[in-house]
Amino acid sequence: MDIREYVFGLCDKAKEAGAVLGYALTDEKNEALRKIAEALRAEKEYILTENRADIDGAEANGVPKTMRDRLLLTADRIEGIAAATEKVALLPDPCGEGEVNVRPNGLKISAMKVPLGVIGIIYEARPNVTADAAALCLKSGNAAVLKGGKEAINTNRAIMKVMKGALTGTSFGPEVIQLIDSTEREATKVLMNAVGKIDVLIPRGGKGLINAVVSEAKVPVIETGAGNCHIYIDESADLEKALRVAVNAKVSRPSVCNAVETMLVNEKAAEKFLPMYAGAVKEYGVEIRGCERTRSILSEVKAVTEEDYATEFNDYIIAVKVVKDIGEAIKHIKKYTTGHSEAIMTESLENARRFCREIDAAAVYVNASTRFTDGGEFGMGAEIGISTQKLHARGPMGLRQLTTVKYIVEGDGQIR
Amino acid sequence: MDIREYVFGLCDKAKEAGAVLGYALTDEKNEALRKIAEALRAEKEYILTENRADIDGAEANGVPKTMRDRLLLTADRIEGIAAATEKVALLPDPCGEGEVNVRPNGLKISAMKVPLGVIGIIYEARPNVTADAAALCLKSGNAAVLKGGKEAINTNRAIMKVMKGALTGTSFGPEVIQLIDSTEREATKVLMNAVGKIDVLIPRGGKGLINAVVSEAKVPVIETGAGNCHIYIDESADLEKALRVAVNAKVSRPSVCNAVETMLVNEKAAEKFLPMYAGAVKEYGVEIRGCERTRSILSEVKAVTEEDYATEFNDYIIAVKVVKDIGEAIKHIKKYTTGHSEAIMTESLENARRFCREIDAAAVYVNASTRFTDGGEFGMGAEIGISTQKLHARGPMGLRQLTTVKYIVEGDGQIR
Repeated sequence: MDIREYVFGLCDKAKEAGAVLGYALTDEKNEALRKIAEALRAEKEYILTENRADIDGAEANGVPKTMRDRLLLTADRIEGIAAATEKVALLPDPCGEGEVNVRPNGLKISAMKVPLGVIGIIYEARPNVTADAAALCLKSGNAAVLKGGKEAINTNRAIMKVMKGALTGTSFGPEVIQLIDSTEREATKVLMNAVGKIDVLIPRGGKGLINAVVSEAKVPVIETGAGNCHIYIDESADLEKALRVAVNAKVSRPSVCNAVETMLVNEKAAEKFLPMYAGAVKEYGVEIRGCERTRSILSEVKAVTEEDYATEFNDYIIAVKVVKDIGEAIKHIKKYTTGHSEAIMTESLENARRFCREIDAAAVYVNASTRFTDGGEFGMGAEIGISTQKLHARGPMGLRQLTTVKYIVEGDGQIR
Repeated sequence: MDIREYVFGLCDKAKEAGAVLGYALTDEKNEALRKIAEALRAEKEYILTENRADIDGAEANGVPKTMRDRLLLTADRIEGIAAATEKVALLPDPCGEGEVNVRPNGLKISAMKVPLGVIGIIYEARPNVTADAAALCLKSGNAAVLKGGKEAINTNRAIMKVMKGALTGTSFGPEVIQLIDSTEREATKVLMNAVGKIDVLIPRGGKGLINAVVSEAKVPVIETGAGNCHIYIDESADLEKALRVAVNAKVSRPSVCNAVETMLVNEKAAEKFLPMYAGAVKEYGVEIRGCERTRSILSEVKAVTEEDYATEFNDYIIAVKVVKDIGEAIKHIKKYTTGHSEAIMTESLENARRFCREIDAAAVYVNASTRFTDGGEFGMGAEIGISTQKLHARGPMGLRQLTTVKYIVEGDGQIR
């Protein structure tokens, strides 16, 4: 079968079923999510068997260990996926939220939140995303067309089969979730260019994947993820507090987008703070790459390059630069920020205000770790990604960010 | 000078000044808008002289009369533009609005509305848009890069000069508004592809302009305008009310996007309603193009084509189709809608609910004219356009739709 026809066919089926899902009752959607969780638990052995096939394939193809670990499912991990699906059922449904406003002429205008329609999601070989993304789309009333990494194809197919089975008999039916069951690169291309077939495309994964989608897609994209995050240690910072936060922002999970990649230190604090920092991160094996002034304080540190400043290491590496003042710190951040999360450690109200005002990022922190940029930590219950663009959604995207507005205007014969 | 370098240069200047405008006080912005209004009035003669040059040029080049009328300024029209600018000063400033939420760990998260940054606007030869768009961008804290129709170049240059003069001495300065002073088509292309230089591009004008921008632009676009709007006269409709609304929706201003282009009439109402409608629109010279059943009732009516159903006439023309029931009406609308405004005339609560639920459009009307889809009528005070897309903004876009969110996270050393 022609790949274009195949992908478009899935999108069309998703759209048709999605139109019904769009006005399904919250109770129906929650019930469907609980059925999915139940089915995932009941079909655990089947899913594990299919996952074994993917793992064996990955080993045979020399897929690196870290990637194989993300691909691997265990009984515990499947339980985790099922529990996460149940948790989505407990979240408030954004659809139907809204503001109502009666105009002077008596027109009643309700600005209702409604689903976007059909959401395409392109992701890497992480089978948990298959269930996770499907659950968030379903709860927000959106049909989903999923395209996962080729290494996970057997697992994804199994999870989708189990989920679709659980949706049989609901008012909207199993076609609201679709998996592009193909490992061809062409399938991804078709999805990125399915103008009019999908309402938005969300890439979820590393920088390479996201850049490819942003540059190639003709459908609307919500850019997620890239985080070249900074922390600035101000002259006035409480250095103990600054140390705790700066270390946490680097080492608590270096592989994620909200980890800090560059630390800027005020020259008046550097002499005292840098040895404290170097001492604290030593046990984590963090490699420090420093500017000239950093190296004059920390003699064993490697020289930082311009390229380092622009790099999201996602690793136990940090670039360090000593700056004259907050102005130089802001200037540096403006040059290298990806607009994700930026932090200042300061006890000066004036500097805190200036930093918040002048830094243009999804999340700007005063005296807290950038690691909090996360849907769960922000109180959204769950997230489908972190947007680094300004249109539509910025920062963590929860269920509400998967909706648009529909104005329902009720009158009694009003004319203009 | 190289056109690319020139346009990018304007964008860069706009971005730099816009960063300051982004956190200007509302009072400062309002004062600037009042100064602009004052300057437009004071420099009326100069603007009229430059406009005369454009009008003469348009006549010499055989520009059609309707287009020349939109290009023409008079003392009254300039007063209208100045008054509109003052009105923008009275609107609430969306920047700084937001929700605050203290998390269980004490982190205070403020979701603040902030400007998008630099907004590009491409429009036709309507000089009022130059002042209008600049005022809305300024009030919402955004820098603006404007590209108007080539026939209005002298007028636009004059208006921009006067506005910039009024901004001299403000904290953010005159560079927050920029006019691309070029009649080259290439300048538009450069703006559409100024990735990283502008944050969003809004085309304002006819279908041709919008389609060109949507298909060619690499920067994020908010699609505006196209409105193939329908009105469905249900079996249960109050026919007097339906007549009043259906006539208004067609004839009150046929050239605009919220005017109705196709009327669907339930077969049980058709025999009575169609002659009423034909009689009422006769005095406006409306041409009816009908389906077979319409023509069996209204004998002098021309046959409608499939193409007519897909056409936004923007004229005194209406396509009419008799339908079996609401289901057929919804099916027809789903096939031809541009997602702008759709109306039902009914006294049946069930049918009203079904129509609102199943029709996917920015505005869905029950017993009121589609002509109300407008920022002013919706209570937004002003609008920069009407979005027919689902991402970011849908329906009339006021000041609030020109903002994004910035999360300000304040802590006291919290780590994760």
